[in-house]
Amino acid sequence: MTTIQDIADRLGISKGTVSKALNDASDISESLQKQILETAVEMGYTKLRRQRGIAKRLCVLVEKDKLVYEEPHQLGYDIIMGFRQMAEPAGYAVDIIPIDEEMQKSTSYEIFMLQHDYLGSFVLGFSLADPWMQDFHSSRTPAVLYDNQILSNPATAYVGIDNEEGMYLAVSHLKELGHQRIGYLSDPMGSHIMQLRQNAFFHAMERNCLLAGSEDTGHLTDNSDNIAQELQRLLQRGTTALICSHDQIARAVILQCRRLGLRIPQDLSIVGFDDLPFSPRISPSLTTIRQERTELGKCGYYALDSLMNNVSIGTVLLHARLIVRHSTVQVVDR
Amino acid sequence: MTTIQDIADRLGISKGTVSKALNDASDISESLQKQILETAVEMGYTKLRRQRGIAKRLCVLVEKDKLVYEEPHQLGYDIIMGFRQMAEPAGYAVDIIPIDEEMQKSTSYEIFMLQHDYLGSFVLGFSLADPWMQDFHSSRTPAVLYDNQILSNPATAYVGIDNEEGMYLAVSHLKELGHQRIGYLSDPMGSHIMQLRQNAFFHAMERNCLLAGSEDTGHLTDNSDNIAQELQRLLQRGTTALICSHDQIARAVILQCRRLGLRIPQDLSIVGFDDLPFSPRISPSLTTIRQERTELGKCGYYALDSLMNNVSIGTVLLHARLIVRHSTVQVVDR
Repeated sequence: MTTIQDIADRLGISKGTVSKALNDASDISESLQKQILETAVEMGYTKLRRQRGIAKRLCVLVEKDKLVYEEPHQLGYDIIMGFRQMAEPAGYAVDIIPIDEEMQKSTSYEIFMLQHDYLGSFVLGFSLADPWMQDFHSSRTPAVLYDNQILSNPATAYVGIDNEEGMYLAVSHLKELGHQRIGYLSDPMGSHIMQLRQNAFFHAMERNCLLAGSEDTGHLTDNSDNIAQELQRLLQRGTTALICSHDQIARAVILQCRRLGLRIPQDLSIVGFDDLPFSPRISPSLTTIRQERTELGKCGYYALDSLMNNVSIGTVLLHARLIVRHSTVQVVDR
Repeated sequence: MTTIQDIADRLGISKGTVSKALNDASDISESLQKQILETAVEMGYTKLRRQRGIAKRLCVLVEKDKLVYEEPHQLGYDIIMGFRQMAEPAGYAVDIIPIDEEMQKSTSYEIFMLQHDYLGSFVLGFSLADPWMQDFHSSRTPAVLYDNQILSNPATAYVGIDNEEGMYLAVSHLKELGHQRIGYLSDPMGSHIMQLRQNAFFHAMERNCLLAGSEDTGHLTDNSDNIAQELQRLLQRGTTALICSHDQIARAVILQCRRLGLRIPQDLSIVGFDDLPFSPRISPSLTTIRQERTELGKCGYYALDSLMNNVSIGTVLLHARLIVRHSTVQVVDR
């Protein structure tokens, strides 16, 4: 169990200063108080919650098996941490609830929220096929969806990275390195986000005055057993650089290229998407588009706070950031 | 000069309750306090600001002549009010500053902000040609732009209505009324927002499985002297419904139709965009897509607050709302 002393030790400040921050004293700077509160949340100092009496309740709904969130620095973990770092100091109790399809079928979203006395939800890892995605079209209890958008329900908002900006940064980077024939390799189109990213790829090519048609894109099957085939098809088209719809695909492509005797990046430059924890550590380290994970969680809170205050924000997009590592290089005339 | 009594009278509550809200007392409900603070701002009770000592400073930069903001219920006035209703209770002093091209040429955005000690800005009415639009590509002082987007500068954010959603609502409404041949009439493409709305029109037609090509769109000149010509060209194509890129154009089209002896909506259904104050009052009253103006201002504050807290939100879009009035009707076979 985390104590005030633990928080003080972590930050190298006195116990008294930590107490001041927790008790909302006036003689402490706002930025220091913010840092202390965020650290208290991160370290699991749950007394914070109890101090405020009967806390208002929010929940984070996580689709089981779709988004990993149990370990630090995983995509889901960091997003949830960012959300809690805003919500808990604002006086909310936040429950993290794993959800599966069966549970969604057994009760509606609205009834679930009512039964558990939640004022709003932050929804992670849902796909278009999830039953509650239908509920969100008419629900009245605020729901903020990470990477999913419900058109024209004022009680829902969509939060995610700006995929248009991300793809623009990726294509512009490759163009600067001299690449003209750029391919795109994607998961199946079963999620909102995969559809958005592929469209963003075409827009980014157009903005950069580069040609791309559907034959420059490849789609993997659910178990990715066609990766060698799709890769060879794109290479035969003269593709010198490949943008992948997320980092796992980029990692699989690097492995496949090794089997085919291709050198990365000399024979093929590769750009990922997401900047997952493994991306700087694989060989070669991956050039990718970073999603600032804790910031995404904070965006989720901003959006939910606004919906709960009857400001019906529909979309909040975080700026994308290009991280250049060793999987991309100047094109070589062959 | 507004007094506490004035605020109490407006809300029909006691002076003591108003005082409690202004002094952040604990025995008053959050929602009531919020309502009192918003009313205090609306009524110009500026003592609020002075009570907090040296207030942190924000500015709203308004392009002169582009956006009217001096009178209540004008687009700019309401947006600014929404922004102030969030910013001032949070302890910020907000200055409203009219800006023209000359001023932008004489000093850079960054230097202007530094000289006046502003922590961030909310930028209204700028067009792509405004000199500071270049500054925003590399500026480091947070700027939130209404209806303008700067790609890939993490210190800027774009706030606006969701035009994709708005156009989708407009086209879906007309389709439900039986319209198939729907036209689109726009201002010149010199602004970000006019480009977005035209693209959104094409997307909305596609989503509704309706055909539309460039010949279904018309573009007015700067002084709109080609409105009769564009209107007749579209009517000759068999257009039975027309979506206008904003309410002023819709109003001009209604006038023009009257001159041509056409009945609205029987001969042509018309949808506007924005729901400006005149839209319910013209004849016929205008079916349109509403921008909730004060909510847009509040979104502006949410975005600026996040940028100032190093959460680099890039885009915040407000839900669009369809307002059905008398300028649209079931299509009649002719």
